[in-house]
Order: sequence, then structure tokens, then C-alpha cells
Amino acid sequence: MAITARVDLNAEQVAALSLLVSGRISQNQSVLDAHGRDESAFPPVQPSAVVTVKSTEEVSKVLAYCNQEQIPVVAFGVGSSLEGHVLPLFGGISLDLSEMDQILAISPDDLTVKVQAGVKRMALNKKLSSEGLFFSVDPGADATIGGMASTGAAGTTTVRYGSMRENVLKLTAVLADGTILEVGRETRKLSAGYDLTRLIVGSEGTLAVITEITLRLFGIPEKMASAVSCFASLEDGVQAAIAIVRSGVAIARCEFLDAQSIRNVNSHDGISLQEAPTLLFEFHGSPRGVEEDAQLVQEITSEFGGTDFKWTTEEGERRKLWQARHNAYWAGIAAHPGKRGISTDAAVPLSKLAQAVAVSEKLLKESGFPFSILGHVADGNFHSFIITDPTKPEELEQIRELTHEMTSQIIAMGGTCTGEHGIGAGKIDSLVEEAGAASVAVMRAIKATLDPNGILNPGKIFS
Amino acid sequence: MAITARVDLNAEQVAALSLLVSGRISQNQSVLDAHGRDESAFPPVQPSAVVTVKSTEEVSKVLAYCNQEQIPVVAFGVGSSLEGHVLPLFGGISLDLSEMDQILAISPDDLTVKVQAGVKRMALNKKLSSEGLFFSVDPGADATIGGMASTGAAGTTTVRYGSMRENVLKLTAVLADGTILEVGRETRKLSAGYDLTRLIVGSEGTLAVITEITLRLFGIPEKMASAVSCFASLEDGVQAAIAIVRSGVAIARCEFLDAQSIRNVNSHDGISLQEAPTLLFEFHGSPRGVEEDAQLVQEITSEFGGTDFKWTTEEGERRKLWQARHNAYWAGIAAHPGKRGISTDAAVPLSKLAQAVAVSEKLLKESGFPFSILGHVADGNFHSFIITDPTKPEELEQIRELTHEMTSQIIAMGGTCTGEHGIGAGKIDSLVEEAGAASVAVMRAIKATLDPNGILNPGKIFS
Repeated sequence: MAITARVDLNAEQVAALSLLVSGRISQNQSVLDAHGRDESAFPPVQPSAVVTVKSTEEVSKVLAYCNQEQIPVVAFGVGSSLEGHVLPLFGGISLDLSEMDQILAISPDDLTVKVQAGVKRMALNKKLSSEGLFFSVDPGADATIGGMASTGAAGTTTVRYGSMRENVLKLTAVLADGTILEVGRETRKLSAGYDLTRLIVGSEGTLAVITEITLRLFGIPEKMASAVSCFASLEDGVQAAIAIVRSGVAIARCEFLDAQSIRNVNSHDGISLQEAPTLLFEFHGSPRGVEEDAQLVQEITSEFGGTDFKWTTEEGERRKLWQARHNAYWAGIAAHPGKRGISTDAAVPLSKLAQAVAVSEKLLKESGFPFSILGHVADGNFHSFIITDPTKPEELEQIRELTHEMTSQIIAMGGTCTGEHGIGAGKIDSLVEEAGAASVAVMRAIKATLDPNGILNPGKIFS
Repeated sequence: MAITARVDLNAEQVAALSLLVSGRISQNQSVLDAHGRDESAFPPVQPSAVVTVKSTEEVSKVLAYCNQEQIPVVAFGVGSSLEGHVLPLFGGISLDLSEMDQILAISPDDLTVKVQAGVKRMALNKKLSSEGLFFSVDPGADATIGGMASTGAAGTTTVRYGSMRENVLKLTAVLADGTILEVGRETRKLSAGYDLTRLIVGSEGTLAVITEITLRLFGIPEKMASAVSCFASLEDGVQAAIAIVRSGVAIARCEFLDAQSIRNVNSHDGISLQEAPTLLFEFHGSPRGVEEDAQLVQEITSEFGGTDFKWTTEEGERRKLWQARHNAYWAGIAAHPGKRGISTDAAVPLSKLAQAVAVSEKLLKESGFPFSILGHVADGNFHSFIITDPTKPEELEQIRELTHEMTSQIIAMGGTCTGEHGIGAGKIDSLVEEAGAASVAVMRAIKATLDPNGILNPGKIFS
């Protein structure tokens, strides 16, 4: 039986849940508010209660109870999702895992770390740096590792180090009925049965609640260098990025920002990049290696009319540049006081990237909404950042139509409606358009098998 | 309903299937023989008939019919599996995909290729080389891409380029009821719904029959270099390999061979490597880059007592060395005329590798069987190669006990019973021991959902 209407807890249910978590349940308005929104532009929806858990065993007990009572459960970390993943669309409980924030075991010899789901990315990397190690997946936001695993997060370094799909080795996860699963293995290779780890990673809390994660780590490179190059047009920059990927040069990051994005970050971060379509690069390796990589990249960019190539191994400058890139989202909002930003997320095969960006730019210009375009071009993945006025809710519908048109054209050219943000509540129709009815039917069948009452994050991925 | 006993086709069924595939069905003894064995030591089992298919649509029709008639179906490529995957344990049909051998589309701009399942790895790479591209997964055997996808194959270059799990972007696969699925996307990043691609990759033909695959490609490196270093003991070599991985130097291959393996390949390939525990390396990159990498590796190996470090960028020498490594399996058999070889497959976290190899070596020595040890040490993955006399079938039971003991100890130290060969018919109990009853129950539930009659490769992964 599926959840079809909003569920509000009765007093008996609140009392029963409270017993399971030593009283860590709240129906306080500000707590409900904080768990009813994320970074998306979807209207807030409050859960009926917020349950804070401290262990896998507590998650198991809470889920077993909610399954029996048919109470929806949405796992919550910090709410940095961009597609409404954490919104409790059908009420029920928001299961807050943010206090499960222990780093359980760092194993420098294995290049792995085991964490609880509520550990945040930046705190983890701060801890790891003293061991000369880092966790590579970098979506920009200071998300929890559990949230990143659930959405299959990726980011600026994915071109070199992979996304969560490649970097999660092992998971502890709890099924809807409270069954505790350990899937995967702390080995670098595994061929033992179905790949349940990668089924749960990216399933957006609809198949299981992730409570513990073992991640793959990398040694901090001996040397890191960054570089910048400007282009006359968006297309020139994109073509240069594609040529760099094809050349095989080992870029650790390769990001594209249009002139508007550069204006935004200049203003927000007090820097002075040339306000033109720009590629930012990062190289990781030996001192000679990064120099060689940067030289090769300079040669290729200049073939595509790239100008003002600057590179540096100076650490302060490198950090400032990448901090500015990471701030692009907030810089975009800051450039439009009182407004909200909506980030699209498309990925295409490399050969279609220039066309996809051009199509998106054309539709965005025609729409009249302020926008900027940026992205992880070496992966064929880019975002349009559209500014909307929250006092004009009718704009949301217009933007929905605009993004749907962009997405349909991306899908028609062999691309995907989401390279890294996930389906959430916003791209349910696009998933069917892209994957086809047969594939979505298989996904639904797996969902029905593992969560027959449909309590886990209802209204996400599927309608 | 599950298949519980051998199924032999009646005349009506043979006629019906024949109609579906333009007469390409055979019950000729030599054809049945050829489809009743693989590279494992399991006793041969003939299918009731061999059906050769030429298109996804034919696979769909055949599966729909077999599902209706509850006839077991085992997909067959070239039979290079090492765990009995292609053995038709319950009769029924062997579905031969080897004539689906078309390379459908090479896209140098996207660094992808789309192939039919029966395309063989070496033919593919020969074709790709004229475009300056290569497909990286290299299990040694000249397997079909469909077979490699089904077992989630890996190999000597996985440390640098990943296994099939990372290199399959998109699949066409046919479910038990004949439904044709397209899963995945020809993009480098994808976050749209459940990762069905990675669920099907490695599912050993038990969830669907893979008919077409889009693979990720890489540009052939500007320069390739190889190197060799000898060690006083197995453990020294393993420790050196671990230190090299931790150093972050970009090795493309890093293989360990014990003295016995070296003796075997020297004799088989007419080469003259020093007969000692040995690490073989390969480096891919720019001319300066590979030189720098090789120097760093030499420094590290010498810290662990490595001697006779030799490196070369000479292409003939490099090829000869790696051909010898790839021939290690056949060299082991050739060293024992009339005998068969059984290859184990274990992977452990890097910190446990020396211990795991030592435990395996001790048990093997105690057993009295001739053996050699080699493996992809940079991935923590190694194989023991045990020689058995086919005229003494009682040895198989002894070896089964021996490998079970080795596997149990590997699992107890956090390792896996298979890094790359898969579960097949041989490691069903080990899967339960390793993954736990709850995880295996989830795998079984998914299997029952997608293949309710259990016609797809019965007797594999699960008992």
C-alpha cells in the first residue's frame, strides 16, 4: 500500500517514537520549519515531527515502528539538497541524522575512512588533512556524507577522482522494516553478488536510510596548481575543455563560468577576474608534473582563442580562486538581493556539450530571467542558475516550463536531466522521458520489493 | 516458482524456438559439449539445446518464450569464466551471443564505443587503436564484452582505469519476460534514478541478458613504460606495492608474481626474468611523466629491499613482458602437462594484503598441491593458482576444502571471496558468509522481482 495523503502523528505515535529515541522528538514550530525546506525553490512543507537519532539501532527501531504504523520517513542531514529531496511531502517524520557525526575510523594504510552519516564534508577533510589524506567528492555545499551518498553527489573534482558512486566502498543502511544491512566491503575491488552499495547510493532515501559509510580516500597531492583562461565565447571555452579531456592530460578540476558568473564572484569575493567566459583548472601531481600539465593546457586553450592564461602554484591564490568558484551559487543570489536562485543540472556526451550549452543559453535569453551558466565541463555536466523573485510565485511555473523545455532538448540529444543533483521531487517526469517506462517500472518494482508500504521518502523519484 | 530440476526441451519447444531464430538452434553433441564447459574445474554439464541469436529482438522473443515455458537460459560468449558461470546446471538452453559481434559506433569525440555483447576484447582494441583509443579493462582472457559486463570483470589496469563497473556507461538488456531495457546514459555523469546499470553489471546473467554495451574509452597514452623489480620475499614485494599506492604515484599496472609464476612464464614465453618474487609495473603518461614515475617507484622498491630494478620504454620489450604476465595462467598449466589449474580470487583492504598472502601461502604449502601466487596487488586483489590432476577427481574436493578455508580467513580479515571472478556456482556459500543473510535476502528479493520464474542462469550466485 502506498502513502497517498499527508500523515500527521497522533499523540500515541509521538509517545511511542519518543520512547524509542530517549525523548529526542520535537514538534516545535521552528524545528518543523527547519526540516521543511532545502536549497530548492519548492515551497516548504513541514513534517509532523522531527526525530533525532544517535545510532543505527535507533534508526532501525524508528523505521520498524513507522513501517508498522505507515508513517512516512524522510532522512535529513543539513538540507543542502537542490531538488526537494528532504521535503516531507506527505508529512510523517523528518529523521534527523545530523547528531550521528562521529568519524569512526581513519585507516591511512587502507586509504579509507568510516563515518556516521551526519558527518559533514568539510569537518571530515579538516580531520583527514593531518594524516595527509583527503576525501575527494566536493559538491560545493558543506553537505553531510549521508546526504551526499543518498543523492550520489559529485562535484568539481569528479573528473579526476569520481563521484560518490566510485568513492563509497561500504554502507550500513536500514531498510523500511528496520532490517540493518551492511553492503559492500572495505576492499578496492568487489565482485561478490549484486552491487547493493551502488543501488542504495543515489536512491535518495527511497530504498533505505544510510547510517554509516566507508569512503575511499586519496593522499593530498605533493603539488597543486591552478590556472585560468578567458575566451571570446561560451562555445570556444567549451570546445577547449573538450579538447583538453581528449588529450588525456590529468586535470583534477576543469570548470567553466560564463561572464555573468565571473561578475558575480568578483563582486562577492572581492577578486578581479576578467569578466569573460572563463575556464578554471586545477592540477594535482609532482612539481614537474603539474607544470607540464599546465603547459599542455595552455597550448590547447590558445588553439581555441584562449587568452590571459595565468597559472599559479601559490596556495593562497589557488584557494581563493576555488573558494570563489564554490561561492558562485551564493554570489549569484547576492547579486540579486531578495531573490532566489534555481540551479538546473544537465549532462550530455562531450560531443554535444557546446550544442547543449548554446541551446540552454538561447532559451534562457528568450525567457528574460536573469541567469548565469557554469559547470563541470570536462564531465559534460553544466548548470544554469536562474534568478527568481519569491514575491512573484507565478515565476516558478514559468521557470518550470523553461527548464522542462531545456531538459527535453538535452534528453533528445542523448543527455540526462541530472548529472549530480538527482531526481527528487522536481524531475520525476523527466526521469520517465529519459529512462523510458520499462526502466522506471523496474525501479518501481525494486522500490515496492524493499519498501512495500512506501514509507521511505514518498513523492521522490516516482510520482 | 523456481527451477528445481534439469529441464530438457521437447520437440515442440525445439521447433518453437527454431522459428524464433531462423533455425539457429542446435542439439549436436559437439555444440552441446562446447557450451557445457568453461575455464573452471567444474564438471561439464550440457545444455539441452544451443540457441544462437543475432539481435536484441531475437533475445527478447527467446526469453519471452522460455519464461512462458519455464526453460532455463544461460547466456554464453566464449566460455572464459572461472567460476562456472556459463554452465547450464539445470539444462535448458545455452543462449549463444557470440555472433552478435558488431562494433556499432565508435565516438572518438565522446571517448565511447557502443558494441554488441559478443564483441571480443582484443578485436575491439585492435579496431580502436586506429583511432588512438583503447578500452582499458583487461582480464587477460580474450573475453566478450557481454561476458565481461555480466561478471563485472576487472584486471591488470583496474588500479588506474577502473573495472567494468566504472567503464560501462549504458546497456541494452533483456529481462526474463522479454522486456527490452535501456539503462544508463552515454554521459560521464548520471544521477537519474536507481543505478540499474551497475545492478545488471556483475549480476552474472541472473537478472537480465545483456545485448549491447556502451563503454568508456581512453586515449592511448603518449608514452608507456614498464619496469620490473625483484624481492627477497613475497611479503617484501607486497609491502613495496602498498607503499607505492600510498605514495599516489600514477601506476597503470602493478602486478605481483611469485618465484613459481616467474619460472612458469620464463619457460612458457622464452624469457629470462630472475626467478624471485617480482613486481611488474606499467606507467602511462608523457615522456617526462613516466620517467618521473619510474624513478619514484625505484626509490620506493629499494626501500623494501627491491633489487634488479629495470625499466624500459621500448615497446617490444614492454609488450613481451605483459604478454608473459597474461600468459601466467596458461604457463602454469603448461608447466604441469595433463593437469588443470584452479584460480582462486581474493581481495582485502591494502593493510591486510601481506597477511592475506602469507596465510594463503601457508595453507597452500601445507596442502601439498603445486601452486603459484600472483595478482593485482595495488588493488589488494590476488590469485592462488592451484594445480590439480583431472584423473584424480577426489582432488577437487580437497581443493574445495582448502580454498574454503582460505576464503573464510580472508573474509574474517575484512576481505572478499571475489575481487573480480564473481560468485558463479563456486562461491555461493562464501557470499552468505561474507555479505550476511540480510544482504543476500535483498539480492534474492530483487532476483525474484525481476525473474519470478527463476529462468535466468539458475544455480548461480544463489543456491
